[in-house]
Amino acid sequence: MKNAVGRDIPDSLLKDGKEVYQGKNYMDGKYIQKATPRTRRYERPRESKLVDSIAQALRDCGARSGMTFSFHHHLRDGDHVVNLVMKAAIEELGLCDLTIAASSLGAAHDPIADYIEEGKVIGIQTSGIRGRMGEVVSAGKLKTPAVIRSHGGRPRAIEAGEVHIDIAFVAAPTSDCVGNCRGVGGKSNCGSMGYAMTDAKYADHVVVVTDCLVDFPNMPASVEAIDVDAVVVVDSIGDPRKIASAAARISQNPRDLMMAENVAKVIAATPWFKEGFSFQTGVGGPSLAANLFLEQYMDQRDIKMGWAIGGICGPMVEMLKKGKVGKVIDVQDFDLDAVNSIHQTPGHYEMSASQYANPANKGAFVNKLDFVVLAALEIDTGFNVNVLTGSDGVLRGAPGGHPDTAAGSKCCIIVTPLTRGRMATVCEHVVTVTTPGDCVDVLVTDYGIAVNPLRPDLIECLDKAGIPHVAIEALKDKAYSLVGRPDDLEWEDRVVAVLEARDGTILDVVRKIKPYTMD
Amino acid sequence: MKNAVGRDIPDSLLKDGKEVYQGKNYMDGKYIQKATPRTRRYERPRESKLVDSIAQALRDCGARSGMTFSFHHHLRDGDHVVNLVMKAAIEELGLCDLTIAASSLGAAHDPIADYIEEGKVIGIQTSGIRGRMGEVVSAGKLKTPAVIRSHGGRPRAIEAGEVHIDIAFVAAPTSDCVGNCRGVGGKSNCGSMGYAMTDAKYADHVVVVTDCLVDFPNMPASVEAIDVDAVVVVDSIGDPRKIASAAARISQNPRDLMMAENVAKVIAATPWFKEGFSFQTGVGGPSLAANLFLEQYMDQRDIKMGWAIGGICGPMVEMLKKGKVGKVIDVQDFDLDAVNSIHQTPGHYEMSASQYANPANKGAFVNKLDFVVLAALEIDTGFNVNVLTGSDGVLRGAPGGHPDTAAGSKCCIIVTPLTRGRMATVCEHVVTVTTPGDCVDVLVTDYGIAVNPLRPDLIECLDKAGIPHVAIEALKDKAYSLVGRPDDLEWEDRVVAVLEARDGTILDVVRKIKPYTMD
Repeated sequence: MKNAVGRDIPDSLLKDGKEVYQGKNYMDGKYIQKATPRTRRYERPRESKLVDSIAQALRDCGARSGMTFSFHHHLRDGDHVVNLVMKAAIEELGLCDLTIAASSLGAAHDPIADYIEEGKVIGIQTSGIRGRMGEVVSAGKLKTPAVIRSHGGRPRAIEAGEVHIDIAFVAAPTSDCVGNCRGVGGKSNCGSMGYAMTDAKYADHVVVVTDCLVDFPNMPASVEAIDVDAVVVVDSIGDPRKIASAAARISQNPRDLMMAENVAKVIAATPWFKEGFSFQTGVGGPSLAANLFLEQYMDQRDIKMGWAIGGICGPMVEMLKKGKVGKVIDVQDFDLDAVNSIHQTPGHYEMSASQYANPANKGAFVNKLDFVVLAALEIDTGFNVNVLTGSDGVLRGAPGGHPDTAAGSKCCIIVTPLTRGRMATVCEHVVTVTTPGDCVDVLVTDYGIAVNPLRPDLIECLDKAGIPHVAIEALKDKAYSLVGRPDDLEWEDRVVAVLEARDGTILDVVRKIKPYTMD
Repeated sequence: MKNAVGRDIPDSLLKDGKEVYQGKNYMDGKYIQKATPRTRRYERPRESKLVDSIAQALRDCGARSGMTFSFHHHLRDGDHVVNLVMKAAIEELGLCDLTIAASSLGAAHDPIADYIEEGKVIGIQTSGIRGRMGEVVSAGKLKTPAVIRSHGGRPRAIEAGEVHIDIAFVAAPTSDCVGNCRGVGGKSNCGSMGYAMTDAKYADHVVVVTDCLVDFPNMPASVEAIDVDAVVVVDSIGDPRKIASAAARISQNPRDLMMAENVAKVIAATPWFKEGFSFQTGVGGPSLAANLFLEQYMDQRDIKMGWAIGGICGPMVEMLKKGKVGKVIDVQDFDLDAVNSIHQTPGHYEMSASQYANPANKGAFVNKLDFVVLAALEIDTGFNVNVLTGSDGVLRGAPGGHPDTAAGSKCCIIVTPLTRGRMATVCEHVVTVTTPGDCVDVLVTDYGIAVNPLRPDLIECLDKAGIPHVAIEALKDKAYSLVGRPDDLEWEDRVVAVLEARDGTILDVVRKIKPYTMD
């Protein structure tokens, strides 16, 4: 069945009430009976939940084949925990038919690709999928289609019971002996632990894996001991050099700066750019640079930002410290400046993924967002964005908070160069729709600006401010004239990944790519 | 059927799997499928959830007769919210057959007694019940037996689905326009909002009632906007003079001081009195005075308290500020010193009722507690304590955290004068068992100390330290010799209140008291 972004969704996926994407806010006002874990009562006081090994924790939590284990990705490319746990489960306990439900997966998890090829891991639920895992899934080696969700769609799915977590693993920079966890104070700090919070509340069992045991009580706890069954101390939960990068530097590339300046111009031309406005930006070159130009406009008009959300990095912390933004609410930290600021700098708070972006709760932070500035691998003339699949059709990206902030914000700006290498970024049809066009408002490229025709109010704002803009088709034509129109990818029938819209409907599917043959 | 504390529980109450009290830790290791709310999806961004009146909020949340409304008692004797809501529901919307599920109810809620007499309110679930409400319930005027639970038993019952909250009302000293609530920053501050947290997560609908609207986002939020349907601004949520009292003063009564000194002596004689020990005390005269003497022992031995929990008052905040206690974790504030310290004094944290005391989660704070010092209305020779019913059998108290801290702590000390007025405090059989004797370890009175024979380890500690102690029967005999043995109360058959043990079994019932007649 064709969905609202024109994608053909196989009927075989439309069971158990699953629907195709129907457009923004389709689920608004509907009621949901939340899911519920089955948990153990620890009535008898015990001093400690420490166990000797991950294998022992797995046994204590009744781990068996066919289960779903959850993970969070605050340790990013430095994460050791997914691999440690899966190795213990598969090689020590001999489990198989396992599903990994992670907030994201990346290059750190290449070894999991082997478990997929061996059929030990049969399901993947994640936002990001990259590296070898992306390749083997794209090659059709995972038994069931991977399910790709946004950062808001994930807690939605968990709360709806669509993902039932048998055991949640919490990678904790610090924990006490009963499992109160924090993202700071240890040797592998990640700052916010926002993505782990829903897991801990909805999993049947919760295992904390830490490399820094601290005195009870470890407060304020990001994951609370009342939800934790076992605590395991390992040598290292992650490689600190890869967890948080050094301070994100603002691009000096003139093309990036030009685009960033245009982003700030667009923002400053709208009615929401006023005292107390709210903002989120990605950490990509031109997105981050937009901060710089925005600050100039703020100074000119003598206004301050009320609050900022998102994955947080140094430049936003700097604005908080300077008093240019009132509050920063943080679901994940991208660099050491942010890690070292959360819970320390007044006004820098932690939030859960559900608070951040879940479209099925009673109003996430994204719902109050004025502006978001986002990148794209591709954007098509329907303003649909792809941030998941490469131009070769292979999984190598992550929707992350992209669809959530786009849907929630009053003004969603995509900033991207018109071409990358020999590929057109603005195109006729994106390979995979990860953020639907009805949520995307403005496109800023190095060759011009386009406004979504669904937003005549924004067109009027830009016209009034004298900001030139063109039809997105003109940008697509320009891109194709520069690098040529790409050949269509050739797919097999087999669906290797299902791309869920944040509301749980199906936005797109990724099929197995046809093996390349020399004709 | 007789339960483990010798109380006869009517078989009619033992349905739907309800059991009689079987002794401490009976439920340990059992599994529970948690309950779950049915909630509305707010996918479409909206700027505000403000509604004009409580009546409108009730309508928006689908309020109807037969529903259960929940409340928390951080505003204590100053609370206006219960009365405002019940008046709107009954007098404006015309609802009836309502149940109030509150964390506690007191003298501020006398008007509810009328709604009970009129049959509009047919159910009460609470920890405390006092004033006119206690009288009308004791007189058998509530249609169904009141259910009395401890502060830990309440979140247990909510999470188990034994209390299903249709609409939770959060009395918020500050809220933003979408319902992020805090207990500080307004004109009716209460500090911690720990008892409201479970309600907000498990209720189908949540209404915030505030008298101080603040800018979004009101962080860190005690109750989160993601759980809130509507926000109502009223003139006053409570009378600040009655919410938090001026700093609790330590008793100067020589009898109280003598008992307090003996409490400290007992504590100092045990192996848990060492660097980093943990402690909770009530705010009654001799309980609070125990702090003073304990500090002297701490200084003598050069040790510090690791952490303290509970309802918090000034003297504990003072110890935190002096560095004599490492952390204070706070479910409720009793005075302005505590209200003004939470989230301000480093090391002073908020916790939920579930974190504090729920016996069915994976380990509440009480499970790690070394010492608790508690008061009693009565204690019998089985060490069973009554803190609920007066000597006339009328409901006028509250189990509160008493049964939870007694069960969880390594050493539970009851401190009480042997007699009060013409009544023996130490007696043959308490009127109502609210904390079972198997959870109570030591009794300190003005006429001597008794140790529960279930704790030979503590008897040895006291003997070693040369602290004299006697059999509890001797204290009872002394009490009766001073004031006489009281006549047995005369009851009718009708059960007016069920006293649930913290694990959900039935500990005792309160029957309708026979009307007094002049023979």
